[in-house]
Amino acid sequence: MEGAIKTVVMQYLTSARGKDSLGGKSFQKLVQSQLGNILSDTDSSSAVKDMMKGLDDNHDGKVSFQEYLTLVGYLANSMSEQKSAASGPEETPKH
Amino acid sequence: MEGAIKTVVMQYLTSARGKDSLGGKSFQKLVQSQLGNILSDTDSSSAVKDMMKGLDDNHDGKVSFQEYLTLVGYLANSMSEQKSAASGPEETPKH
Repeated sequence: MEGAIKTVVMQYLTSARGKDSLGGKSFQKLVQSQLGNILSDTDSSSAVKDMMKGLDDNHDGKVSFQEYLTLVGYLANSMSEQKSAASGPEETPKH
Repeated sequence: MEGAIKTVVMQYLTSARGKDSLGGKSFQKLVQSQLGNILSDTDSSSAVKDMMKGLDDNHDGKVSFQEYLTLVGYLANSMSEQKSAASGPEETPKH
């Protein structure tokens, strides 16, 4: 799992190119190339902008590493809910 | 990166074996087998217990998925700080 965490970190650092935070274009590129299969509308720049606004806790118009981790946590949560629901027999309809 | 997030999620779900949270033994096993290279003292059960207490926000003696994500976020943060420091020329001593 260490490799997985490293992948998440390196993805951000590579996109940020030495800067402290991701600007709109870099964020859109990252989301489009890396999360296109689990997020919808990543090709729509207005949808990605809205997502960015939702993450932008300190309202600086950029995505910090913390704000990026919020997105990763959100995705992990929804993945976990899907997987648990799929594997938990008590969650499936019985009739 | 989707695969990386999935790995983090599945690691927890596999360790939890259908339960809502991880007990002490399952948590120790997960930490030992998956995070032994980036965390110190994972072989010491008292060190892992202390870490567990630190994560256990709701004090139920178990590690929920949220609490587990806190650990992952913490590890991602420290990895990111190490990597940024290593790659940022302004951070390295110049003499």
